[in-house]
Amino acid sequence: MSIQHTVVFRLVHEPGSAAETAFVENGRTVLTSIPGVTDFAVNRQVSPKSDLTWQFSMVFADQAAYDAYNAHPAHVGFVETRWKPEVAAFQEYDFVAA
Amino acid sequence: MSIQHTVVFRLVHEPGSAAETAFVENGRTVLTSIPGVTDFAVNRQVSPKSDLTWQFSMVFADQAAYDAYNAHPAHVGFVETRWKPEVAAFQEYDFVAA
Repeated sequence: MSIQHTVVFRLVHEPGSAAETAFVENGRTVLTSIPGVTDFAVNRQVSPKSDLTWQFSMVFADQAAYDAYNAHPAHVGFVETRWKPEVAAFQEYDFVAA
Repeated sequence: MSIQHTVVFRLVHEPGSAAETAFVENGRTVLTSIPGVTDFAVNRQVSPKSDLTWQFSMVFADQAAYDAYNAHPAHVGFVETRWKPEVAAFQEYDFVAA
């Protein structure tokens, strides 16, 4: 069963800043390079009921593809070099059809 | 621009209970009856990084359709008669393409 992996987040950068754009575009480039990542999307979170402002979303065909992504050096490197220093707050959710 | 309206939630009911199924199916029936609701989906939230366990997701063509949904008596009635007594915790997010 396919799994939609999502993370909603807020950056340390000013909204509209070059640093914000750089983070989002680097995330798109790096994460879509990882085998098994499909339907990658960058969305803005616009509900005033949350103070998180971005979402990355991707779909894995199965748990094995998801596990391989988590362990992939490009993912681990992105988390260490970009995510941890540049993300102020986040929440992950994974969805499967009910 | 289309808007994906989502809510991730946990019920007061036992997982696997008839009351849980009844809530989810009533939500599907009532909410999909409201004009402007498209691509309605019920998903299970399976990441252990959140204690919320369900998601309702729907797409509105524009803000006017979203506003009409919020004000629609079927939506207001569902919130009052089912959501408030049966939902233990929830978080809304709305997404637009970046």
